[in-house]
Amino acid sequence: MTDRKSIKQIAAEIQSGRSVVEVVEESLVAADRLNPEHRSFITIAREAALSQAAKADAQRHGGTQHGPLHGVPFAAKDMFETAGILTTGGSPVLKDNVPETSALVVARLEEAGSVLIGKANQHEFAYGATGENNWSGTTRNPFDTTRLAGGSSGGSAAAVAAGIVPYALGTDTGGSVRVPAALCGVVGFKPSFGRMSLQGVIPYCWSLDHAGIFANTVEDVGLVFDQTTSVARAVNPENLRVGIIKGWAERSEPPVRRAFLTAKSALEQMGATFTEIELPDQAEARTVSLTIQLAETLAYHGPNLARARSSFGEDMLSGMALGQFLSAESYVQCKRMLEIYNRAFAETMSSVDVLLTPGCPITAPEVGAVHVDVGGDSLPVGNALTLFTSFFNLVGTPAIALPVREETSHLPVSVQLVGGRNRDAELLGVAQVFEETLRRTKMIAA
Amino acid sequence: MTDRKSIKQIAAEIQSGRSVVEVVEESLVAADRLNPEHRSFITIAREAALSQAAKADAQRHGGTQHGPLHGVPFAAKDMFETAGILTTGGSPVLKDNVPETSALVVARLEEAGSVLIGKANQHEFAYGATGENNWSGTTRNPFDTTRLAGGSSGGSAAAVAAGIVPYALGTDTGGSVRVPAALCGVVGFKPSFGRMSLQGVIPYCWSLDHAGIFANTVEDVGLVFDQTTSVARAVNPENLRVGIIKGWAERSEPPVRRAFLTAKSALEQMGATFTEIELPDQAEARTVSLTIQLAETLAYHGPNLARARSSFGEDMLSGMALGQFLSAESYVQCKRMLEIYNRAFAETMSSVDVLLTPGCPITAPEVGAVHVDVGGDSLPVGNALTLFTSFFNLVGTPAIALPVREETSHLPVSVQLVGGRNRDAELLGVAQVFEETLRRTKMIAA
Repeated sequence: MTDRKSIKQIAAEIQSGRSVVEVVEESLVAADRLNPEHRSFITIAREAALSQAAKADAQRHGGTQHGPLHGVPFAAKDMFETAGILTTGGSPVLKDNVPETSALVVARLEEAGSVLIGKANQHEFAYGATGENNWSGTTRNPFDTTRLAGGSSGGSAAAVAAGIVPYALGTDTGGSVRVPAALCGVVGFKPSFGRMSLQGVIPYCWSLDHAGIFANTVEDVGLVFDQTTSVARAVNPENLRVGIIKGWAERSEPPVRRAFLTAKSALEQMGATFTEIELPDQAEARTVSLTIQLAETLAYHGPNLARARSSFGEDMLSGMALGQFLSAESYVQCKRMLEIYNRAFAETMSSVDVLLTPGCPITAPEVGAVHVDVGGDSLPVGNALTLFTSFFNLVGTPAIALPVREETSHLPVSVQLVGGRNRDAELLGVAQVFEETLRRTKMIAA
Repeated sequence: MTDRKSIKQIAAEIQSGRSVVEVVEESLVAADRLNPEHRSFITIAREAALSQAAKADAQRHGGTQHGPLHGVPFAAKDMFETAGILTTGGSPVLKDNVPETSALVVARLEEAGSVLIGKANQHEFAYGATGENNWSGTTRNPFDTTRLAGGSSGGSAAAVAAGIVPYALGTDTGGSVRVPAALCGVVGFKPSFGRMSLQGVIPYCWSLDHAGIFANTVEDVGLVFDQTTSVARAVNPENLRVGIIKGWAERSEPPVRRAFLTAKSALEQMGATFTEIELPDQAEARTVSLTIQLAETLAYHGPNLARARSSFGEDMLSGMALGQFLSAESYVQCKRMLEIYNRAFAETMSSVDVLLTPGCPITAPEVGAVHVDVGGDSLPVGNALTLFTSFFNLVGTPAIALPVREETSHLPVSVQLVGGRNRDAELLGVAQVFEETLRRTKMIAA
């Protein structure tokens, strides 16, 4: 792994005279060196990156004012369309797809002078939580390359964890930002439904897709969020009321459980009070989520299924095969359930400010694992990974995964903070103070 | 038919000393007298109405301030739940259903002192545009009882047309307010999607259902709309830009076509300019609409289908049977089409203020008709009736059907004005000036 630098550190280096070309070249060299093993990129966009870097340097010499992301390298999951740069969505179905325009958020970041280094690897069309991909190669965990980085935005998480870029874009439909963030020990933020634009992003499932951000610190996440949206942030959480979901910590692996308790005591130091809350039956919620995902992904990819069946990987093919048996009636009923969850969860969130949960019940599983143990139950690895994340896609609330130092594990562990819908600013404010508290008391891995 | 009085006229009578009990008794007597032939009511709520009337009289003696609907009788389609009053949705499936609370808009009207006379007849669960109903009886057109009143809110339209009540509530999923308004010669308003609450209203199809209002004049519609929503109205339309949909008037019956031209010249007198516009392929739009309707109505009524199959009428049964073959994929694709229509239609509406169309291509068909001729094509009667209305449910825009005097027809004819989404106030303002212009030039039947 390369030394991990925050956006603020890199910006400071550039401020004190380091050229953007040099910064970007260092990022490209790290990507080239690590990619054969990590597989965090599908495309490294050397030429475009250096040209954008030179442009940024010229702007600096021109003496205009620059924002906090100017000259800072980043990666975007391959679901984000990028003008003139191959955009595959992790699938050979789009192996020759070079878009003419960039996704709105990519364009905004480039306007702010940030430099796209490459397109991050992912589970095919975001359909899966492990990051395994037979076509583009499975992304490896930078902490232990026998382990998964998670998915579907695994390449984005691994690129940040390995220090190649200080931030990256991903998408999250059931945990696809927060799960790889948890497994790779970086911060992963899924804003409220609709808050970050998905314009120009290949859809997986319109009802549940969220764009998201990976970075090393909450502050960095906030810088990127500010650039891509227009939400003012609130800080200074006082008299914080924290909800704890019954049974979730208890079901988690011992290191995850200990990290959860560490996080809880950091919140206590901040003066928080705790309430136990209950969520709807999670087995049912998973069925609701899956039904919506399968139907919508089939509606989007169906035309390509007829045209290029053999190009799709196993996960997509089996998902779409299942999807074809779903009735419109079941889909509509699941969408109604989603509204019922929304109302019930809004009610729950009226009595607390945030929820604290483990980020993922397990640490990074070995590459190739099919089932894993969660609290005594053997679960398919994908289900285990998204166990604590996917409900918050159904209700569209902002959620952030944060690494917590846990000495007993060589693999990262993580907690998740969840806010009320469209209370993104409040959640980021709480997360930032929480992160500082952890750091002050040496509880965070940074 | 009884003399038709407007809300304003009735309110003036009460203002000059007539008791609400007397007004309501007159309305009840008319309902009792006409119902054996017209079948505009499923339930006449004599007891509740007289008790509410007595309460209103007491309030008046108490000397408190009263709004414009105080003491004014009305009817509500049987889809609206009413506390303590049978609510069947036009189906024996709910033949014993007496709700504990009233639909939100009914409650608001009653709080304003308006008096519910009864529950209006309808097509079973709003599933059909003719108003035929083997269980509750088919609503007859007050202008000619061998003719249909239309549907699904036929009872509401007929009750206003016959002068039993000055206004009534209905629901409109593909034209179910505007079609019976057109056939019965009353004003029928479907506000923008979501503007009038459907809380406590039996759903037909969540994506396309709209609540709506029948009355004798646009001004009266506005009074009821103001009471049930909180939208300020704009009047005085200047430099009005009117869109005309290519081919629609030409396809209509001669009296409808003539009425359309009359309406056009009234708009010209108001200083309007005209542009021809095109809508998406309407055959495809009908498929989109139908797919969404079948899937959603099945999702809602499915549990009752298992429990009480034999209670459902033919239309519902065949619709639900069809619905069971719809795939989730098709439904999702139709919902996406709906978004595409929305965007395209918003673009269209950016260059005009309102659209003028015929309200219905035909005048009231005979009871029992199966196919009717529309511009040389033989269409199923339900398709013919909703030909010019259902697209505006897909795009959720406000639309109002207005009667126009046409000497060559003993049956009412009607035009429709359509506004931009959530520009309800503007549309009502235009409609009111338009109606006054028609009346001034003796072109309206009133």
